[in-house]
Amino acid sequence: MAIPPESFFLSTGAGGTLQQRIRQMVAEGILSGRFRPGDRLPSSRALAAHLGISRITVTLAYTELVASDYLTARGRSGYYVSGNAPVPPDFHSRAASGPQYDYARLTGERFSRTARVARPEDWSRFAYPFIYGQADATLFDHQNWRLCALSALGRRDFEALTSDYYERDDPMLIEYILRHILPRRGIDARAGEVLVTMGAQNALWLAGQVLLAPDRVAVMENPGYPGLRPILAQLGCRVAAVDVDQDGLPPDALPHDADVVFTTASHQSPTNATLPLDRRLDLLRLAGERDFVVVEDDYEFEMSFLKPVSPSLKSLDTEGRVVHIGSFSKSLFPGLRLGYMVAPESFIREARALRAQVLRHPPGHIQRTAAYFLSLGHYDALVNRMRAAFKRRRTVMDEAIRANGLDIAGQGGFGGSSFWMRAPESVDTARLAEVLRGQGVLIEPGGAFFAPDRPDRRHYRLAYSSIAVSRIPEGIALIARALQDDEFSARVP
Amino acid sequence: MAIPPESFFLSTGAGGTLQQRIRQMVAEGILSGRFRPGDRLPSSRALAAHLGISRITVTLAYTELVASDYLTARGRSGYYVSGNAPVPPDFHSRAASGPQYDYARLTGERFSRTARVARPEDWSRFAYPFIYGQADATLFDHQNWRLCALSALGRRDFEALTSDYYERDDPMLIEYILRHILPRRGIDARAGEVLVTMGAQNALWLAGQVLLAPDRVAVMENPGYPGLRPILAQLGCRVAAVDVDQDGLPPDALPHDADVVFTTASHQSPTNATLPLDRRLDLLRLAGERDFVVVEDDYEFEMSFLKPVSPSLKSLDTEGRVVHIGSFSKSLFPGLRLGYMVAPESFIREARALRAQVLRHPPGHIQRTAAYFLSLGHYDALVNRMRAAFKRRRTVMDEAIRANGLDIAGQGGFGGSSFWMRAPESVDTARLAEVLRGQGVLIEPGGAFFAPDRPDRRHYRLAYSSIAVSRIPEGIALIARALQDDEFSARVP
Repeated sequence: MAIPPESFFLSTGAGGTLQQRIRQMVAEGILSGRFRPGDRLPSSRALAAHLGISRITVTLAYTELVASDYLTARGRSGYYVSGNAPVPPDFHSRAASGPQYDYARLTGERFSRTARVARPEDWSRFAYPFIYGQADATLFDHQNWRLCALSALGRRDFEALTSDYYERDDPMLIEYILRHILPRRGIDARAGEVLVTMGAQNALWLAGQVLLAPDRVAVMENPGYPGLRPILAQLGCRVAAVDVDQDGLPPDALPHDADVVFTTASHQSPTNATLPLDRRLDLLRLAGERDFVVVEDDYEFEMSFLKPVSPSLKSLDTEGRVVHIGSFSKSLFPGLRLGYMVAPESFIREARALRAQVLRHPPGHIQRTAAYFLSLGHYDALVNRMRAAFKRRRTVMDEAIRANGLDIAGQGGFGGSSFWMRAPESVDTARLAEVLRGQGVLIEPGGAFFAPDRPDRRHYRLAYSSIAVSRIPEGIALIARALQDDEFSARVP
Repeated sequence: MAIPPESFFLSTGAGGTLQQRIRQMVAEGILSGRFRPGDRLPSSRALAAHLGISRITVTLAYTELVASDYLTARGRSGYYVSGNAPVPPDFHSRAASGPQYDYARLTGERFSRTARVARPEDWSRFAYPFIYGQADATLFDHQNWRLCALSALGRRDFEALTSDYYERDDPMLIEYILRHILPRRGIDARAGEVLVTMGAQNALWLAGQVLLAPDRVAVMENPGYPGLRPILAQLGCRVAAVDVDQDGLPPDALPHDADVVFTTASHQSPTNATLPLDRRLDLLRLAGERDFVVVEDDYEFEMSFLKPVSPSLKSLDTEGRVVHIGSFSKSLFPGLRLGYMVAPESFIREARALRAQVLRHPPGHIQRTAAYFLSLGHYDALVNRMRAAFKRRRTVMDEAIRANGLDIAGQGGFGGSSFWMRAPESVDTARLAEVLRGQGVLIEPGGAFFAPDRPDRRHYRLAYSSIAVSRIPEGIALIARALQDDEFSARVP
């Protein structure tokens, strides 16, 4: 790589001759690891012009550096960092700096101190990744995604790609969401009622900020989506965790002072329960009577391969009390960071203004690429392929789980991409996950899904969205075997 | 487009025979504009399977809809929405819905009530767009950006593209920033000291959230970057606006209780002043003595084409009190939404955790594409092209401004992409912008840059980052002519 002349400054305080200072800067760059063997140095002409000094000074400094083996000269093509140059030390010296200001003291580490679902970054290198919510490279339609990205990068789409949007999102994506995604959820909306977000997490965050304040009461499902907990904690509102049962959130268990109810009605996260129609109607009736708002996280609706998906809560909402959240993270891939929210315009206007403050807008290129992929039918084809694969995997997994005598706590009648599991009472699944990881098996301990005042260590989640069908039986057998090991079985009385 | 079977639901409450209800759903879809002429309906087999009813019922409903001209049958290829189908009304009926819940009452519209710099979305269709911060399609390197995007979409990079990062950013981008961007600003940092953000706006927002609270004091430059004002307002902290002079922010004018000082030291926004070295050293000395933190928005440093860029504040910071913010929005394009921040690890850790809460991470594909574009040298080439073009435009503009007797309030000695202008005392530049817009000239009225308690209507900004050099003289002449019109000149005593 070529080192730009702008990397060099003649600092005012330093001593020594100009020539010495240039040598020092080069040597420091090499010793700090910034300049690496093979990197080309600026020409003596360019560096001299940049520093406003004579060219001969630079040439002399370079010659000296060649002599000391920091640089090599390659005839007319210039000077390069030598392959024999001193190797930078592994540790990082900060000779010039005193002790650094400690921000932890200032910030109280209020953002970094939250529990997260543990997920190794190199999960795909494990033999049995029962991991949730990651993309499966074997199912994704690379070729067409590339073609769509290329179309979105075309000169014709330059504006959509580069514009600093504020008031609106990519009209092509909005159009597709309005005409083809929302109708599948029974929702009839206008453009002003939809906002594109950086995935469902971003939508939940925006909804929380717009709707809540320290004196208000938010309801979370228990167990529930862990990504919501730090959002509510940060807002300082009161959080009421309501236990879900086999049918999801029971409306009659809601506290009377609820202001905002967060629910994963269609596919409860993590138990996979689907809220029955009568509970949906009850929930919406109560929302009107007690004046609260419902935030519906409608994740994973595309993965209903066993039963037709039920209409969303939003489709039953005549008063505009439901904020509906959808995402392409599961159906396309999580790294895309693309989702949307649907609500009355008076809500969307606020969420849009807040989004602009925080990040302006989701990148135009991402929006346009997704719009092409969706509207050319590749999305439907991909979802169908995923459904078929997930259905096969689920069947194999179901058999393996039963054959190995493991206990399913929730699996959902619609399909989905995971089983919610229950280990014997005394098992700590965080520890179980640790042991299994050493054997190439990744499971998700369930602790993070539970309210801190009702800790639970025995549940865990097994997803089949990223594991090959052929690996499933052996993986499940390994889990069963681990549970029979002394460490875990001994604790059962 | 094909209408998916999932768009159809048999709602439980509705009356009528199954056949009638299907006809109703199709007609409603057409009348509401969701289904459009030429759209293909699901096959009778697919729809029947989806709804769990007999196929003949669907076929009979379709036949009836053909008779009433809602649909047309095209032999074996199926049923389509007819070109003669009733046209949906322009207004949007919500027969089924009552009045919608009013979120404005709940939210107090606290996010949407903030002033912004006015900028028409269709600016590129104006003949004389002296508009700031937009991409210039004539300078951008389309072809190589496309190639880089394609590389980033390759199978080898699938993980970088799709992963749900949390703890880290794209290592390839971080590596480039550490080795090639930051050294040009005199900064030597480690990977844990850098966070990739959704542009500079997002970085400012994160810094504000991490560093400030309602009882703390934030300093803003006056005039200063308008995007910062709503961030600070939202935090509820006390905002002290400090007037800048020809040399930027005067450290001796800082309030004694300042906690965080936001500055655009290298290129003051909008006056273009560069903070001299002695003021930089004073500012950092005061930060240590009075225990405050400095947030340095180092935007546009690449556009120093008249003088070598001065090292950043961060490069002089021995105590870790400077949070340094950079962005690719100006040098690549604003729709990219990509920037970074550099600070001690104890700060970056908090900012990263907050970022995860709000949006998880900037999309992997964007990060990787930028990493390729940067590391293959296309970025340097683009910046050089932009510098050359901006230098030409600036010269022409400078001459035109002087020839027309307009008054420059700040232009900066380094280069940049705009002039900060001053109209005669009684002129309201918001009104001037309105008048000029009618003549195809876009200028930016300066009001939004000033603290609300020190309103100023006479300044305006003229950028040359998106206007062709050939348009400049005529555009400037039009501005001068407008200022001589009765409406504006009459007010001067």
